[in-house]
Parts: sequence; C-alpha cells; structure tokens
Amino acid sequence: MTHKIAILGASGYTGAELVRLIATHPTMEITALSADRKAGMTMGAVFPHLRHLTLPTLVRIEEIDFADVDLVFCALPHATSQEVIAGLPRHLKVVDLSADFRLRDPVEYEKWYGKPHAAPELQKEAVYGLTEFYRDEIRGARLVAGTGCNAATGQYAIRPLIEAAVIDLDEIVIDLKAAVSGAGRSLKENLLHAELSEGYQAYAAGGTHRHLGEFDQEFSKAAGRPVQVQFTPHLIPANRGILATVYLRGDAAAVHDALAKAYENETFIKVLPMGEHPSTKHVRGSNFVHIGVVADRLPGRVMVIAALDNLTKGSSGQALQNANLMLGGEETAGLMLAPVFP
Amino acid sequence: MTHKIAILGASGYTGAELVRLIATHPTMEITALSADRKAGMTMGAVFPHLRHLTLPTLVRIEEIDFADVDLVFCALPHATSQEVIAGLPRHLKVVDLSADFRLRDPVEYEKWYGKPHAAPELQKEAVYGLTEFYRDEIRGARLVAGTGCNAATGQYAIRPLIEAAVIDLDEIVIDLKAAVSGAGRSLKENLLHAELSEGYQAYAAGGTHRHLGEFDQEFSKAAGRPVQVQFTPHLIPANRGILATVYLRGDAAAVHDALAKAYENETFIKVLPMGEHPSTKHVRGSNFVHIGVVADRLPGRVMVIAALDNLTKGSSGQALQNANLMLGGEETAGLMLAPVFP
Amino acid sequence: MTHKIAILGASGYTGAELVRLIATHPTMEITALSADRKAGMTMGAVFPHLRHLTLPTLVRIEEIDFADVDLVFCALPHATSQEVIAGLPRHLKVVDLSADFRLRDPVEYEKWYGKPHAAPELQKEAVYGLTEFYRDEIRGARLVAGTGCNAATGQYAIRPLIEAAVIDLDEIVIDLKAAVSGAGRSLKENLLHAELSEGYQAYAAGGTHRHLGEFDQEFSKAAGRPVQVQFTPHLIPANRGILATVYLRGDAAAVHDALAKAYENETFIKVLPMGEHPSTKHVRGSNFVHIGVVADRLPGRVMVIAALDNLTKGSSGQALQNANLMLGGEETAGLMLAPVFP
Amino acid sequence: MTHKIAILGASGYTGAELVRLIATHPTMEITALSADRKAGMTMGAVFPHLRHLTLPTLVRIEEIDFADVDLVFCALPHATSQEVIAGLPRHLKVVDLSADFRLRDPVEYEKWYGKPHAAPELQKEAVYGLTEFYRDEIRGARLVAGTGCNAATGQYAIRPLIEAAVIDLDEIVIDLKAAVSGAGRSLKENLLHAELSEGYQAYAAGGTHRHLGEFDQEFSKAAGRPVQVQFTPHLIPANRGILATVYLRGDAAAVHDALAKAYENETFIKVLPMGEHPSTKHVRGSNFVHIGVVADRLPGRVMVIAALDNLTKGSSGQALQNANLMLGGEETAGLMLAPVFP
Repeated sequence: MTHKIAILGASGYTGAELVRLIATHPTMEITALSADRKAGMTMGAVFPHLRHLTLPTLVRIEEIDFADVDLVFCALPHATSQEVIAGLPRHLKVVDLSADFRLRDPVEYEKWYGKPHAAPELQKEAVYGLTEFYRDEIRGARLVAGTGCNAATGQYAIRPLIEAAVIDLDEIVIDLKAAVSGAGRSLKENLLHAELSEGYQAYAAGGTHRHLGEFDQEFSKAAGRPVQVQFTPHLIPANRGILATVYLRGDAAAVHDALAKAYENETFIKVLPMGEHPSTKHVRGSNFVHIGVVADRLPGRVMVIAALDNLTKGSSGQALQNANLMLGGEETAGLMLAPVFP
Repeated sequence: MTHKIAILGASGYTGAELVRLIATHPTMEITALSADRKAGMTMGAVFPHLRHLTLPTLVRIEEIDFADVDLVFCALPHATSQEVIAGLPRHLKVVDLSADFRLRDPVEYEKWYGKPHAAPELQKEAVYGLTEFYRDEIRGARLVAGTGCNAATGQYAIRPLIEAAVIDLDEIVIDLKAAVSGAGRSLKENLLHAELSEGYQAYAAGGTHRHLGEFDQEFSKAAGRPVQVQFTPHLIPANRGILATVYLRGDAAAVHDALAKAYENETFIKVLPMGEHPSTKHVRGSNFVHIGVVADRLPGRVMVIAALDNLTKGSSGQALQNANLMLGGEETAGLMLAPVFP
Repeated sequence: MTHKIAILGASGYTGAELVRLIATHPTMEITALSADRKAGMTMGAVFPHLRHLTLPTLVRIEEIDFADVDLVFCALPHATSQEVIAGLPRHLKVVDLSADFRLRDPVEYEKWYGKPHAAPELQKEAVYGLTEFYRDEIRGARLVAGTGCNAATGQYAIRPLIEAAVIDLDEIVIDLKAAVSGAGRSLKENLLHAELSEGYQAYAAGGTHRHLGEFDQEFSKAAGRPVQVQFTPHLIPANRGILATVYLRGDAAAVHDALAKAYENETFIKVLPMGEHPSTKHVRGSNFVHIGVVADRLPGRVMVIAALDNLTKGSSGQALQNANLMLGGEETAGLMLAPVFP
Repeated sequence: MTHKIAILGASGYTGAELVRLIATHPTMEITALSADRKAGMTMGAVFPHLRHLTLPTLVRIEEIDFADVDLVFCALPHATSQEVIAGLPRHLKVVDLSADFRLRDPVEYEKWYGKPHAAPELQKEAVYGLTEFYRDEIRGARLVAGTGCNAATGQYAIRPLIEAAVIDLDEIVIDLKAAVSGAGRSLKENLLHAELSEGYQAYAAGGTHRHLGEFDQEFSKAAGRPVQVQFTPHLIPANRGILATVYLRGDAAAVHDALAKAYENETFIKVLPMGEHPSTKHVRGSNFVHIGVVADRLPGRVMVIAALDNLTKGSSGQALQNANLMLGGEETAGLMLAPVFP
C-alpha cells in the first residue's frame, strides 16, 4: 500500500532533503509540492539535483487538493506554519518541521518567538518529535512537531543521563558546532561562501538561542524539576553536521553505561566505545547519530559528544522516521542510507 | 536470490563507496572484504561511517574462500590488480576498478603504465566498463575493466558525437576539473587540506595523464580512425566530482540533438536543455551524469560540459551497474540514490 | 610626503582590500570612506578584520570634502560609477574599479552593458589600467579604468604572445576558473556557502561574459586586426583566485621565450620554468601573477596557464599599483606583501 | 642596522610563515635557511608562494656558518629542537618554536612528552614567549620558548582574569576549535582534504593534549596556587585559526573590565564590546587577537571567546614579536599586516 504525501515549503533545504529520502521509500508517493514564491516551477528547476525524479510541479498551498493526501510534511517558516496547519483538513496527519509546535507552554512560546501562538489548541495536540523518546505517542499522533536540530543533538547526548540520574543537573554545558545548512537557503551576508569559508565563530551565545526553550522544556520534564543548561552554538565552515560537546559532572563509566543501555535497541543511535570521538563526517547524509564518551582528567568530570546530520536526523530524516510511525509502517523505511564519505 | 560479493582492497575510497552502495542493494550480500595492511580490523574501524553495518572483518586475500563467492570487485592499485585477478578461480565474475584491463593493446599499456602487462591473456578477455556503450558485452563478460573516472566523463560528453559524425575529430579539447577523492586515500603532500583547500591548479598537463590512453583507444575505435584529443586536468578544492568542459567544432543544435538522442533511454544520463550549465554539486553521491551544451559566439564552435561523481558513476557506481548486468539483475539496483545536496 | 586618499564604495570586498593594502603603505593616508547604505557606521563594524585601524567613519559621497583629497579609488558598481565620477572635482586623480571606463568604444559599452554610457567624454579620457602594458599612459593619466579581473588574467597569459606574433590569433581558447569573491558581497543564492562549497560549474559560457568586451578590444588593438577568443568562466569553491588555462597554437619554446622576455623586468609577473603549473594558492593575498607554459603532446599546441588573486592583482592591488604611478611614487609601494600560504 | 637571521626547519608551515613576515621587515635579513631532507632545494621550490623572494638555498644545519648570524628561529620538531639548540654557539639569540622549552619543570616535560629532557640547563634559561605577559624577561633573554598555539589562545582569554581575581579558579572549561595548519605539513590520513573537509570532531579530549602542561604551569603561576582546567580541542575544516570558547564563573562586567584594562595598551590584542563574537576569519594572516565576552543567562556564568591565527600570533608572528624585543627593535616591526578577508 502506498501513502500519498504532500510537502509544503518544498523549496528549502529540508523540503529537498525530504524529497531525496522519499525518492527511494518503498511505500510513499509524493503527490503535491508547494512553494509560494516558486509556484509553477518544476522541482528540478529549483533543485537540479532532483531533476531525475518525476515529481509534481510546485504549486501554491491553496491549489492542493488534500482529499487524497494521507500525510503532510510542513517545511514552512515558523509563524507561517501554525497558520497553515490550522487551516488543513483534520483527516491529514501532519509532521511539522518548524519551531511552531515544539513548546508545550504558550508562555514559553511567546518568550522565545516574540509573539503569541496563533493556534494554541493545535499546540496542545502536538507530540514532540524526538522519536526515540516519544515513539508511542508519535505512533498515535495526528500532529508531530519536529525538534530543533541543535535541540535534538543535545538531547541525544544528555537525556538518558537525566533519566538514569547519573549527572549533576545544575552543571550542564553544551558547546555546539553547527554547519551552515541549518540556517536554511535564505540570503544573509554571513551565509555567503566568502564570509563563512575558512572562518568560524560563536553566535547567539549566552542564552538567546531559541532551541534553549526546547532544552528547558524537555530536560525539566525528564528530570521532574527545573533544569537549565548553558548553551553556546558556533557556526562552522561546512554544509551539513552538528557536533555537540557536552561538559558534565558524573562518573564516566556510569555515563557510558547509561547511554549504551538507553540506545542498545535503537537502529540509528550508535554509542562508541569509551574514549572514541565521533565526527560529523561519519554521519553525513544519513539518519545516524554517533555518541562518544570521554572521561576528563579532572575527577568527576566527563564529556559526551554527539554528532548528527542536521538536515537528516536533525530535521527531514527525523520527520520521515516519525511519519513512518504515524502511518503504521516500518520505522526505518527510506532511512537506512549509509553516510556519504568522503 | 542473493549474490555473494567479495571486495578486494576495501580500505580505499572506492572500496568504501562500494560498501555504501551495496548496503541497500536488494540482492547482494558482502561476504568477504580484503585489505592487506589492515587485515584483522573491522570495516567500521577503517571507515567509521560504516559502523552501523554488519560486515565481514577485513582479511588478507589469501584468507578468502572464494568457493561461495559469485562476484569480486577488485579495488586494488594497478599492477597489483592484474596479478591478483590472474590468481582468482575462474568461476568468479570480476569487476576490476583499477587501470589494469582498460587498454586492449599491450603496447599501449606499457607506454602509459611503464611496464609490460603481467596477464596479457586476461587483458584480451576483459570488456571495457563504460556501461552505456558496452552493455551487451558486459552482460556476458566474466571480467569487466572499470574505466578511468576522467575518461568516463570525457567519453559521456564526446562519444555520441563521434558516432553521429557531428564534430571535427581533430579539434577536441577537454579541460577537466577533478575533486580530490579521485587521487585516493594515499598520503601525499598535495592532498593535504592545508595544501589543497582555497587553491587550484592544473596537473599532468600536456598529454602525460594516463587516462589519455583510454581516450585514444575509445575515440579511435568509435571513429574508425585515429583520434587524439587535448586534455588538461585540474585539481579543485572539493572532495567529489568531475566537470569536463569540452571545446568542439560543430553545430550546437546538432550536437545537442545527438546527445539527447543517444541518451534518451538512459536512466543515469541527463542531457540538460540547450544552454544550461551542469554542476558537480547536482550529482554528488549519485550515479547520475548531467550534460550541458552551449553554443559559442564564434560560429561553428560549441562546448559540451559533463558532470559526474568520480567515486560513484566514475568508479564504484559504474562497477555496481556493470555487476548488476553481469549477474543478470536489474541494472539500476542499488543505484537510484538521489544526489546529496547541499 | 603623504597623499590623501578617498575610497568610494568602501563596504564591498574591493574597498576592504584597498584599505588592507593601504594600511601599510608608506605615503598614503585614507581621509574619506563612503558607503551609502552603511553611512554612519565604522569600517570596523562593516569589516571587523579592519578594527585595529584608525579610519574615517563611513559617509555618503556628498558629505566628503574633496578639496584636500589627492586621489579617489572608486569601488562602486558599474553604471553608478560613471555618474559619480562625472560629478567629482577635476583636480582629483581617479582610479575606477568598475567596468565603466574599460571599453573605448561607446557602441561596445552599450552592447556589453545594455545601456548607453552616461559620461562619454570621460570614457575618452580614461586609460586602461593593465599596468604592465599601459605604464606610461597611466603615469600621466587623471582617470584610470581598472580592468576586469578575468580580463587581466587572460591578458597576462596572451598579450605578449600577440605582440611577439608567436601564436595563431584565430585559435585562442580561455578556460577560466574563478573564486567567489569576484562576484562581490551581494546576496545571491548561488554565492551561499551551502550552494557553492563542494561543487563547481561553468557560468556565462558561450560568449556572454562581459569581460569578453575587454578581450576583444585589447587583443585586437595589440594585433592590429580583429581578434576574438573563446572564453568559458567557471565558479570554483574558493574565496580568492583566478586560474586561466589558455589553449593556443604555436611553438611552446617560442611562447615561453616571449613571455619570459616580456616580463623579465616586471616585479609582479613571474614566468615559471617550462612545464611547471602555477596555482592560485601560491599568489593568494598578493599582487603577484604566476604564469606557466606547457607543450601539448599534439604538435603545435601549447597551454599557457596564469594565476592571480582577483581581489589583489585582479582589482585592488592593480588599482593601488596604478595610483602609485599616477602620484609619482614607487610603483610597488604597499604591494610587496608575500602571498598567504597555507 | 640590519640583523642577520637564520631559520632552522624552514620547510614547515611555521618556517614559511616566518619568511613571509620577515619579507617586509625593515631591519631583518634572512641569511640562512635549513631543512635537512630538502637541503639543496630553493625555498621557492618547497614553497612556490615565496618564489618572488631572493632567499638563501636550503642547507643542512651543519653547513651554516653562524658567526655572522644574530638570531636563530628554530622551527624544528620537539625533541630535535633541544639537541640542535644545545649545539648552537652561545652568541646567538634563539627563538624556539617547538615545545621543548615551554615547561619549566623537567618532571612535567617528561610527563607530557614521554622522555627526559636532553638539555635541562637550557630549559632553565629559557623564557616563556607569551609576549604580553613576559615582555621584560624576553627583552633580556637569549633563549625564548614559543608557546603552544592553543596554549596562547587560552591564556589570552583567561590570564588577566586570574590576575584580577574575578573568576573561580576551579571552574574553567576551554572548548577549543583549531584549524588544520596547526598540525603541520606532515603526511597523516586525518589531515587529507578528503578526510577533513566537510567534517569536524574533537581530538585528544579528556586531558591528554600536551598544551595542558602549559596551561597548568602558567595558570598556576599566575594564581599562586595549583590551577587545572578542562580542555577539549576540536579539528575544524579550515586552514588557519584558533577559537577558544572559555566557560567561566564570575561577573561578566568584571570579566570584561579586567580584560579591557589588561590589554588597553596592547597593539595586537583587541577586546570587543560586551556581547560581540570574535571570528577566526577576522584575524586570519595577522598577528591580532580578538577577544569577546558574553554573559550567560545563568547568573554568575560568563563566556570569554578568543580568536587568533595559529601560524601568526599563535606561532611565527609571536616568534617575530619576541625577536624584535630581543634585538632591541620595534616590537611591532613586520607585524602590522592587516588580516586577509575574505
């Protein structure tokens, strides 16, 4: 049986990545693609790397007949996303890749995104899309909120450690290194090749990055009490990849054990042998997460380092993994592609 | 039915690329991997991006029991390859990725590679592996010689034009731009990141590059008379990709027509609309070739530009495509992965 | 004696490069910097790499008092440049970095730039800024037109060969590889890191690139009869550098001799020993040009390969070299910086 | 007056960087260059970007007549360096760029470098080369030990804060991002372009990196009691640059004040306005250090971020700055080159 899929906002990188993954998916068929400003164009004109595929022409959302569609991936910007999803027929399953439905608390949403949520009822309904920790809820969900790519990386490193109570909850520092595609295809000076290549720097340091809202929500929920982390993202001259170096207090062996145990049955999460360093290069283009644990020379201190591809496991791959669950299919369908190296 | 596959020389980039592609192949199973200097190691230790796969441990060639193997990919260095293949059991189908069996004429082999061929009988038996032009011979072959990656790119641009007699055979200039993975994983100063990144230059200009032997052989064969091209390769600061800009004399419309017609039924070769420029970025990680045709302002002059991924269509993807034919399977099996962009 | 310098359009890459070079110039002082949209900002805010310098705040052009200024570098976009320069006081010496005064013939200007020239009298007055070939005229000029960066690279390779009559004028092919900073700091999708890095392609192939106007003008002038070349530029994933691979008909030794003789007294032009390949990496950040000559295996064919840094010798370094001459100073002042490698 | 300079180990990146800087130095002349394995070659053959310079041919150390030499830069590998320097005439001033004389305590040296020091008397004599903190000692020194490039970056961020007693000495985390040229020109698989480009990872995490020896020594000395930091270096796909993100406990305003005051008269150290992020791109190719301070949302926590060019301020630029002092010259001579951007 084939499920019919629509992708809204298909002219961005996450939209293109969804098409790439679904191209070899055994039970999904893309029947509609939207992109308001590029309506009328073929996907091959917007993304020539997809020109070999037979795909629907890009249209405006209002031109789509959703009657036959089973599931919608919504890859629109935040704020736009909540309005569009609120207007979709209720029979549709929806995976939203924006930030709009990640935060449960409308007050938190307004704090981080600067204006009130326009669809608070939907916000309540949405399930947080970190598959390995919300698998059962996602299976039954109508609306799943894709996580932030940075937020996902940090959570894969830390979340089982909170649940296993092996770290000090008040001493968590996440130093994160992100590649540029996470910033999307928008025209900003700092994203130009000439500005970015051969240089790197922090951005949104000190607690202003919006993914902190997710960290606060999810870590506090897992801990059963408020948890606030330090988080400094950096922009690295590469196109894909996030590396989170997390500084923790705890016993390194206990930390490694907790992670190994938490993920022992997870297809996509690989905990490396103690002391090994993961690299973004080893997960590029794939849905895999590599996690390393290193004991510091200072007693009681330990680093957990997690690497994933922001466009795949951090965004579109995660979305597809969730869609597979929502449609009752094989969770890994379309997602077993090996990383592309070198 | 599953075919049992061995890969010899699995610790290089083409070996790793074969494993990546076969990982999602529906009817192939890797049963042996060799790497002399890394024998005893796991593939995941040599290539951590493959750590999620269950693969045989690397062994020395002489440790492999070939009785159950159906097909061998030989990704060894040239000169070594001919010796190893000469010693393999005759029941094996073999796809060789080295330069050893590309040239039909032992004199030409010695001229370009500097010493006599050690297995001239095998050389006669080998079929040249440019799939789209030798499909029938490959289907029945026991030994297929993978083409040079530069040689493949140039031939995709030019070969149908020789066959259609729409260009001047004495005025062919191939200016080629190659990414660094084509040089392999060997430790050479000019392959260091610090030496290569942010700079580019020609190499082996003037007629000394060994892939000229293939151009001479194949173009002369296609033309039915000697053809010699000018060929200047350049090393570009990127990891995957070859772009061949070919300067020709002929009518641009006739050239475009000849290419479009030659490839109209080919799954992997895409001829762009007249005047469009292909990019290596749009074929990266895939088995596709993009070909563009541009008329010059000078009457009677035309450029054909071809782009492919040297590790996939230029090497391991081509090898798998040929193996599919040799084993009587679907030619495109395992090869429909979309390019990874960005 | 110190000369007072104004830079108009200082917020682009060529403006910043002028500031970098003048920073260690012994006899120049920057007294005004303009940037219309960024007026009021410090140069350090626009280009933080210059924050250690004491520089005038950016202003609008009309705010500049030109009475005390000796020489103006005009780094504005073409079309704007001609209007601004037409309005400057006549006592000023002017080096224009735009395309506005490169073409002598108003008909040619309109053909390549799409509209009539707005200052045809100035156009007559301007001297073409390829220093090594117009040194005497530049010394006495009031207005010098900086060359196109691609046009400069091609001319360094070819011009002495026309003058020495050692090549076939009807068989000149320039395959050029350009880094991205030549496209400026403007916000275009194809200049994004995610779009450009790890890929490369031709652009404006077939005779549509505007620098062809300069090639036509200058080569025809040097030859004393019309000369038209084939020219295909490519965009390479690097920030600085142009490499021109020029395919010619002629005797390689005669070609090498003609180049070596033409440049034997030139400080900035280095002709490599026969057969060596220049690299953009070896001239990066400097005013040097490296030129190599390689004989092809086909008799009578030869390649000349020239490398320079588009922002330095191709633009701002050339401009400073010309300004030095116009002000009666040492031609090489401020320009002897060694390339930055790696 | 001109000082005569010898550079030992001139075929590595720090040797080439010294030549680049000295090329425009007003009072230094290079009279000898050594490189054992490349003895007999010209510097232009080893580093073609220096081919425009008139330089002595590379020789073996024993071929150098040191009688006329005033100062030696020793850019040899550690262990080799101590033996060579021990054998040099005592009239020579020496700046060593290796690790051999950085650690005062022979026990610490053996601990971090794995074998006993071969020249313990010289070790006592050496002055630690962090110019801004040892300026007076360096002026009178005969032997100065260049600091580690990572060690320099961390110290610029932290050292004034220890001296001003505004941070918690037991809570210092240095997350460092280093470009590849710091690893030198040696042939290692992980330094290949294909391995490094587009990926990044930690290395030597957990307290095994040798620059920790310098941190321990210098921070403890500054504090007057033992101080041990956490330090995790990462390898970033870029050629030049180090960015240290330092996590501290203290008041952000007090931290910013202490840094601003410490460096207010320093030519090369720029403390950015509170909240701004430095970038390695803004110091590339220069001797400048940019330092930013950001308050975290968690009260009492603050980040200090420092950026420098590892080959210039982190190594050869620092060495030249020290040599200027040792020779009684202008400290900044040859070092005021603006960064190269983009």
